[in-house]
Amino acid sequence: MFKTDLPPLPVSLPGGRGYAIHVAALREVPRLMAEAGLRTGRCLVVTDTNVATLYQASLENALREAGWTPKTIALPPGEATKAPGPLQRIYDDALAWGIDRKTPVLALGGGVVGDLAGFAAATLLRGLPFAQLPTTLIAQVDSAIGGKTGINHAVGKNLVGAFHQPRLVCVDLATLSTLPSLEWTSGLAEVVKHAFIADVDFLDFLETNWPAVLARETGVVGEMVYRAAGIKAVVVSEDEREQGRRAILNFGHTFGHAIERVAGYGQFTHGEAVALGMRAALHLSHRLHPDLPLERAYRLARQLPVRNRLADLPEAALTQAMRFDKKVEAGTLRFVVLRRLGEAYVTSEASQADVEAAWAFAREE
Amino acid sequence: MFKTDLPPLPVSLPGGRGYAIHVAALREVPRLMAEAGLRTGRCLVVTDTNVATLYQASLENALREAGWTPKTIALPPGEATKAPGPLQRIYDDALAWGIDRKTPVLALGGGVVGDLAGFAAATLLRGLPFAQLPTTLIAQVDSAIGGKTGINHAVGKNLVGAFHQPRLVCVDLATLSTLPSLEWTSGLAEVVKHAFIADVDFLDFLETNWPAVLARETGVVGEMVYRAAGIKAVVVSEDEREQGRRAILNFGHTFGHAIERVAGYGQFTHGEAVALGMRAALHLSHRLHPDLPLERAYRLARQLPVRNRLADLPEAALTQAMRFDKKVEAGTLRFVVLRRLGEAYVTSEASQADVEAAWAFAREE
Repeated sequence: MFKTDLPPLPVSLPGGRGYAIHVAALREVPRLMAEAGLRTGRCLVVTDTNVATLYQASLENALREAGWTPKTIALPPGEATKAPGPLQRIYDDALAWGIDRKTPVLALGGGVVGDLAGFAAATLLRGLPFAQLPTTLIAQVDSAIGGKTGINHAVGKNLVGAFHQPRLVCVDLATLSTLPSLEWTSGLAEVVKHAFIADVDFLDFLETNWPAVLARETGVVGEMVYRAAGIKAVVVSEDEREQGRRAILNFGHTFGHAIERVAGYGQFTHGEAVALGMRAALHLSHRLHPDLPLERAYRLARQLPVRNRLADLPEAALTQAMRFDKKVEAGTLRFVVLRRLGEAYVTSEASQADVEAAWAFAREE
Repeated sequence: MFKTDLPPLPVSLPGGRGYAIHVAALREVPRLMAEAGLRTGRCLVVTDTNVATLYQASLENALREAGWTPKTIALPPGEATKAPGPLQRIYDDALAWGIDRKTPVLALGGGVVGDLAGFAAATLLRGLPFAQLPTTLIAQVDSAIGGKTGINHAVGKNLVGAFHQPRLVCVDLATLSTLPSLEWTSGLAEVVKHAFIADVDFLDFLETNWPAVLARETGVVGEMVYRAAGIKAVVVSEDEREQGRRAILNFGHTFGHAIERVAGYGQFTHGEAVALGMRAALHLSHRLHPDLPLERAYRLARQLPVRNRLADLPEAALTQAMRFDKKVEAGTLRFVVLRRLGEAYVTSEASQADVEAAWAFAREE
């Protein structure tokens, strides 16, 4: 059994805005809120209807026992909820209920809930405190850490948003047991990405324990989540607003976002798109750094249980779609590539031929 | 003639986010943008159709001559534009046109345009650089300085928003010559408020020069705007996110917001409501500090050419409406009061009787 009394992972930020990532059960949330300096009173829980069925009652009970008055807003699950309509619903319900500037918002769910609730918290009364209570693997190791919040726009994902740091993150590993397998796979793509960009020892760990990872063995999963979240915590501590180092977290994402855009949102999960995008990004890395052990890297990337449907997508459309990426600056495409396993950087030196070769490679089954 | 080569007023903020308020003609904006470190390329101008008629062509010409590619979004004038629909229109137009994270947003207009365009800048691609080019008195001395941005909600004004600091503010005094008289009066209310809360010498200046102020004499107006903007710059430098001292800027506003709410938005201008709200706030200050020279203070407050229509509003509704103010914390009403002329602080010690007496006093013509 994996020990859950692990020390909190710190996210260091200037101006007293640092916070901790705790691996703890949801019933511990009121204690963690008190430790983070949040004052009891009303609090707003934002979740989706699937997660609400599983955890709303127990979270609300724990909050009430600690003296909080919670109100839960449960939205439809899925990416379509990261949109102006559901955001407006949170505004309407919160303001009609009555909140003040110290009312915390708790985001209970996956990346959609975290991004949406975080953006509502960023913009209600010009900023409410909030807590991330991630219940999916991708949220626990990635999206709930680092303060990126936002919604989608018809032109692209996450184009409207804000940086707004949580006051705490509480990772309850038990919530992973109920995760559908597609979401599990999506999360694994980000876990593998973290290893590729920052920690070759963690890459070894994943290679060694891959069958246990796929079988969701508790001990291995606990260590994996803790280490992956720790990588994210370090990177976002170094660069709060993505002006430099943090961009390495987008390894595979410039390709992945193009896949999602061309396929139509919802056709690929974000994790699937990233898994396939990493195949292209590994090839591009190898073009620029021929010493990179492509076979080893690609073997792990291919172990992600993702069906490769890239052949269905026109290559010209994929290349074109990359131009809409938020990371484009003054028309220049920038890519995250690996210099070696465990070390990534951003380059704008990839040629059109490099990019096309990367797409062609990724399309091969 | 008032000299316009005044030194810029600095707003000091941590993390290299300080900026300057320049008193300069709009044609100087491209030079000021370059000084603020903005890189030429595309830039988005947000304005209203009234202001566009007067200044869009000359601003765009100046920008083009300096190498910028401007695109102007002109929205309907008026408070109704501080709403989700116009915000979405900015998102749609900006994203369809093509922006990147370094594309500046220029807010050309009054408080509505500044708040809306600033909020769009705060939330597009998680934050674009922006510049405030205020063309109304209230914007030049108050709303364009300090980084408050946002839109209204049916429950109340400015309930959705963000703190997002401009990279520069450019105050063109010439734009005041075209200002309708109702907007002039609204601005004067904030000017007088600044004097009340922070600068008794400036109060003397206003008393001495009041006829010239009402006649909009260029020299007096220039000095008035510069001094009033300077007060705002100092206060927001001391407290970026309204966690303390900055609250004194809300002198008269808890009452004023209640007036706007009860009358129905648009029935009173913000400045009218603040002018009347200050009468109540002065009375409340005097109840708590009997040494305050109420007659002198009230004389200046009454000189603001605002028609007192408070008698039309039910007093019970006004008292009730104050409970919706953003500054309410844990159900306690907090008021800004004067300890003496030129010195304000926040108190939660006003009794229900004090508040009712203040309303009753303000209602007397």
